[in-house]
Amino acid sequence: MPVKDKDLNDLFLDTLKDIYFAEKHILKALPKMAKAAQSDKLRAAFEKHFDETEGQVERLEQIFELLGKPARGKTCDAIVGILDEGSEIMGEYKGCEALDAGLLAAAQAVEHYEISRYGTLKQWATQLGMKDAAKLLDATLQQEKKTDVALTTLAEASVNRAAAA
Amino acid sequence: MPVKDKDLNDLFLDTLKDIYFAEKHILKALPKMAKAAQSDKLRAAFEKHFDETEGQVERLEQIFELLGKPARGKTCDAIVGILDEGSEIMGEYKGCEALDAGLLAAAQAVEHYEISRYGTLKQWATQLGMKDAAKLLDATLQQEKKTDVALTTLAEASVNRAAAA
Repeated sequence: MPVKDKDLNDLFLDTLKDIYFAEKHILKALPKMAKAAQSDKLRAAFEKHFDETEGQVERLEQIFELLGKPARGKTCDAIVGILDEGSEIMGEYKGCEALDAGLLAAAQAVEHYEISRYGTLKQWATQLGMKDAAKLLDATLQQEKKTDVALTTLAEASVNRAAAA
Repeated sequence: MPVKDKDLNDLFLDTLKDIYFAEKHILKALPKMAKAAQSDKLRAAFEKHFDETEGQVERLEQIFELLGKPARGKTCDAIVGILDEGSEIMGEYKGCEALDAGLLAAAQAVEHYEISRYGTLKQWATQLGMKDAAKLLDATLQQEKKTDVALTTLAEASVNRAAAA
């Protein structure tokens, strides 16, 4: 039986738990992706994003604190599925020239999931009058957008071109 | 044992099958989301996107034809996970004022997955010299981006505001 009085505050907290779970999973996946990467530039990009992701987890923990709630994740089926696809690519394309192109595509799917979630959360925080939370969410949102652009540039500049050669 | 000679052509075909499976699943999910939507505008947006998605499936089938391959999907764990989250929202927020905000967030997660995949596929098609395929993929990519903007506008304009009231 659904609870009739769930409101935007509940949805905000549920979604915060969802992305917190997602970020923790991404932290586990990034070192594997960095290790699998064939090009030095792609490996460096994954390593840089690992450091950024640690900062993003901290920002989420600050928001839980602002809400007076314990920082707790909630299984995020979406990120599990997205990262499973990345693992599949790593298995199927191991030793293949197109591996890096596949890794880049997997990483961009992750970025876009995060862009969607942080965009939504920032909007809800604003509407709920949570200015500090909105600011923290925006900082991460801008970082994710930059990462996506950097991955696109990387894909265009070298990795995919090599794979198509 | 991984096959050593998988190249960008294989990756392109694998990813085409992935998004074909995803679009077919989205076609099944959209009528449920439209039925669940509380606002007329959101319902209309889902119905419009259902029609667009039918066109996107047709474009994918044209690309399979250009490749001389049968149009066949390959399980896409990512979209299964993303849509499962949408179903969860529909269950947990049924009858709640924040339901539409949750549906919008779920729909935007779907859009961003598609934007990521079509962006990647368009780039690969270009690098592989498949001009006609790149054109078809770009048509869908632009449509998905427009849909995402329309959903954001809808979220800002009415649905979430009502939920926060």
